Amino acid sequence: MSAAPESQRMEKIVSLCKRRGFIFQSSEIYGGLNGLWDYGPLGVELKRNLKNYWWRMMVHERDDVVGMDGAILMNRSVWKASGHEDTFTDPMIDCRSCRARLRGDQLVEKKGVKQCPVCGGKDLTEPRAFNLMFKTYVGATEDESSLTYLRPETAQAIFVQFKNILEIARKKLPFGIAQIGKAFRNEINPRNFTFRSREFEQMELEYFCRAEEGMKLLEYWKEERLKFYENIGIPRTRLHVLTVPDDERAFYSKGTYDIEYDFPFGRQELEGVAYRTDYDLVQHQKASGKPLEYFDEETKQKFIPHVVEPSAGVDRTVLALICEAYSDRVRSAGVIVARMKSARRLGSPSISKRSVKKTQNFATRSRCANAIP
Amino acid sequence: MSAAPESQRMEKIVSLCKRRGFIFQSSEIYGGLNGLWDYGPLGVELKRNLKNYWWRMMVHERDDVVGMDGAILMNRSVWKASGHEDTFTDPMIDCRSCRARLRGDQLVEKKGVKQCPVCGGKDLTEPRAFNLMFKTYVGATEDESSLTYLRPETAQAIFVQFKNILEIARKKLPFGIAQIGKAFRNEINPRNFTFRSREFEQMELEYFCRAEEGMKLLEYWKEERLKFYENIGIPRTRLHVLTVPDDERAFYSKGTYDIEYDFPFGRQELEGVAYRTDYDLVQHQKASGKPLEYFDEETKQKFIPHVVEPSAGVDRTVLALICEAYSDRVRSAGVIVARMKSARRLGSPSISKRSVKKTQNFATRSRCANAIP
Repeated sequence: MSAAPESQRMEKIVSLCKRRGFIFQSSEIYGGLNGLWDYGPLGVELKRNLKNYWWRMMVHERDDVVGMDGAILMNRSVWKASGHEDTFTDPMIDCRSCRARLRGDQLVEKKGVKQCPVCGGKDLTEPRAFNLMFKTYVGATEDESSLTYLRPETAQAIFVQFKNILEIARKKLPFGIAQIGKAFRNEINPRNFTFRSREFEQMELEYFCRAEEGMKLLEYWKEERLKFYENIGIPRTRLHVLTVPDDERAFYSKGTYDIEYDFPFGRQELEGVAYRTDYDLVQHQKASGKPLEYFDEETKQKFIPHVVEPSAGVDRTVLALICEAYSDRVRSAGVIVARMKSARRLGSPSISKRSVKKTQNFATRSRCANAIP
Repeated sequence: MSAAPESQRMEKIVSLCKRRGFIFQSSEIYGGLNGLWDYGPLGVELKRNLKNYWWRMMVHERDDVVGMDGAILMNRSVWKASGHEDTFTDPMIDCRSCRARLRGDQLVEKKGVKQCPVCGGKDLTEPRAFNLMFKTYVGATEDESSLTYLRPETAQAIFVQFKNILEIARKKLPFGIAQIGKAFRNEINPRNFTFRSREFEQMELEYFCRAEEGMKLLEYWKEERLKFYENIGIPRTRLHVLTVPDDERAFYSKGTYDIEYDFPFGRQELEGVAYRTDYDLVQHQKASGKPLEYFDEETKQKFIPHVVEPSAGVDRTVLALICEAYSDRVRSAGVIVARMKSARRLGSPSISKRSVKKTQNFATRSRCANAIP
């Protein structure tokens, strides 16, 4: 099969998402804003079901995990210590012929010469490091002293509150802190619908452990997370585990798996499961001067725990669920009904009988059954 | 009673919130960031219960309301059309003696002379208009063309998606669109714990109607929302309805009620119920050139609907619930148990038996029962 039908399929999914009220372009009446999306009446329910199910499985049904909900705006020192201010960059290249702004890895190479993928031009600037964090100023002055960033990941809020939560939750290792929330990345080229967007929602667990348990727990969480996707209706045959090679892993990680899904635009990451070692806590202890150690009552030892992080994308998973529903063989039932099934499968108590009925009426009224190609 | 015990009470609540894992200062290990707060293990559950209950009552249990979830970053044109870019300001004054940065209404007046409330200095700058929206740049350049703002209210996402949602939801007037999400205001002086913070969560309903129904629906929603607060355990005796006087209302509003609560720091707004007329939709239709009209199939008329907006603050309501629990006469049960009661009262299905048990264990382990003063 050529690439064309797959790209057509993606176009149809985007169009269906708009027609059925799953996902709209943000600020659409003003021409939109690149890489930003709004969820409509059905999209928001699907997203809520997914997030509630994740919270139930990862927090409520486990005795070793507690939740938190941190602010999007944090002290800039957090991003200095974590390394994001210096290194959270993509190489950016401009094409001098068509003025396209490109990510370094998007160039095409023909006969050993790098070309612009838009116009084929060879007059390209040198790559420059472009920081992906959105800047803003907190307070009445706009200078270095008031600068900070919209968080590019939710994880750091967990690391900087580790000690507060350890003290009140009184958990023994291994234990986890979970969070669902928005994160922002100023992508040079947002693309593939909601897959690579500039604003997205993460469902992250930081699972703290002893150094010697790290590699074993990495395996454990990879398996748990695969089960999660199967439970919400993504078949194992379309899920793939990529062992991120040594030279592509973050330097602080001792092991990372990407859980990938066969999207219409290719096999792409749904979730990363990373053994981040003690890197983040060590960095924050050093930078803040505040002890972030765990005291082991049995051995009377103090140490900084290691951490394994399963980090899932809400929007990517919603997109995968929609792609699954679209590929359903039961054409007459169509995407809305498939969604209903997955809502039931998610078993979210937030979908009351009444709201299910409501959605069914909605589905009938919008005659989705006939409209699915 | 003098003011001192009340301010002491607030200090005790802030301290208890930290000790019990309800609310921490954001980025605390780095000295925090003024006006920004994180929710800990108990805080996040209370907040989830509240949001889920609001969604259930306002969306799932009603046939005339659908939900949505819009992006925080929107096209700047939205904020030009809504009037926020020009007029969403507070008057800012500097004290030249102690360099305090003050909001105009915070000055104290003695013998007809305005003074700095911090040092008593009289050498004050003229008031300057300070826009409360946080700025950021979307894309690789930092100039006027890429400038936008973190949304200062969630309502505008609903207005700009009105037509898309009207088309797919096929509702007849009156009907509503509901949304829960973060909003940001760069307050000159954040204060009163989470009450006036720089990042907060809103639960907003835009209830569209015919012009002639506006004033009646304003009354309806005021009563509905009062019932809501009573249902979650805030007694009617500590709720007050302020009819916002003509000269203090937004110029486009034909009527606004503030639902206020007796916080330890004074009687303050929990929720605004505003009849916003057709102002926002008219503005967006004018600025975008896109028709935002409703077609009445019976009368064959096209018109822009009016809207009544009940707009509640998640963080303020959580704070009110905590203040209520703290003032409970059942000292031995204390705040956590009071919270448990309100969790049960909220009837949120997201609190499973297991998680309730978990929280009870948690409460017992942290010996909250003995620690409440």
